[in-house]
Amino acid sequence: MDFILTAIGRVRGGRTEPTDDDWGASRAIVELDPGQFGDDALTGLETFSHVEIVYLFDQVAASDVVSGARHPRGRTDWPKIGIFAQRGRTRPNRLGLTVCKVVSATGRSLEVEGLDAIDGTPVLDIKPFMTGFAPRGAVTEPDWAREIMADYW
Amino acid sequence: MDFILTAIGRVRGGRTEPTDDDWGASRAIVELDPGQFGDDALTGLETFSHVEIVYLFDQVAASDVVSGARHPRGRTDWPKIGIFAQRGRTRPNRLGLTVCKVVSATGRSLEVEGLDAIDGTPVLDIKPFMTGFAPRGAVTEPDWAREIMADYW
Repeated sequence: MDFILTAIGRVRGGRTEPTDDDWGASRAIVELDPGQFGDDALTGLETFSHVEIVYLFDQVAASDVVSGARHPRGRTDWPKIGIFAQRGRTRPNRLGLTVCKVVSATGRSLEVEGLDAIDGTPVLDIKPFMTGFAPRGAVTEPDWAREIMADYW
Repeated sequence: MDFILTAIGRVRGGRTEPTDDDWGASRAIVELDPGQFGDDALTGLETFSHVEIVYLFDQVAASDVVSGARHPRGRTDWPKIGIFAQRGRTRPNRLGLTVCKVVSATGRSLEVEGLDAIDGTPVLDIKPFMTGFAPRGAVTEPDWAREIMADYW
């Protein structure tokens, strides 16, 4: 059940501290590892407005990972929620996942806006955002999920 | 740059062959590993209409992984596109990522509709779909990206 994954590159620039809010205007580069990739791995990505970035919260200590339920952000006025029903970083496998705006894609450098990952973060995958992969059907969510995002971007 | 990830569970049921289209009505269970998780890891997930599932295309051989550009689905009438500008499964780290409908979340079992992963697939993460994590700003994509999704769901 264990799998070895290799970072395809790292986040360069952007924020250095993993604070909770105000990520919207943050710009950063995802720099592909030149040992693994040539100039053609990002070809065509600039024809998409958005990408999904899968990354690793590598600064989260194993001892901080939660496998059960907790209050999101420790807010006891919100319900206790299972770790897979929230997006907090202290999660099993420590995977982060965010849709960002494509600013440019040149050679091995992808510039994005609104990536909530700090400088140096290992990146595991980049996928173009296709409208065909948006949610099918009406989207509903609980109140706390809207409240937690109020100042995020 | 290498990281060990552990499957949090597996896909049970649904399709057994990774054909390209008609995934929309497919129902399957994501069953959490009882050795790692109790009954509270999914608590509250039923209050969301959709989840994002991060999984591993473990049937893709390492020798089939593409690190450069290729025609999506081998269609030479579509442009040659970098592996990170398409969502095909022969990709570095072999990560799959799909938004599905939540049918039910009970104990360690999450039933979903529209998961494009076959029976037995290792699952690495489950995240609730929050509208705050939808793309910010207008979404644009190239023509081939709309064409490739025409019969997918």
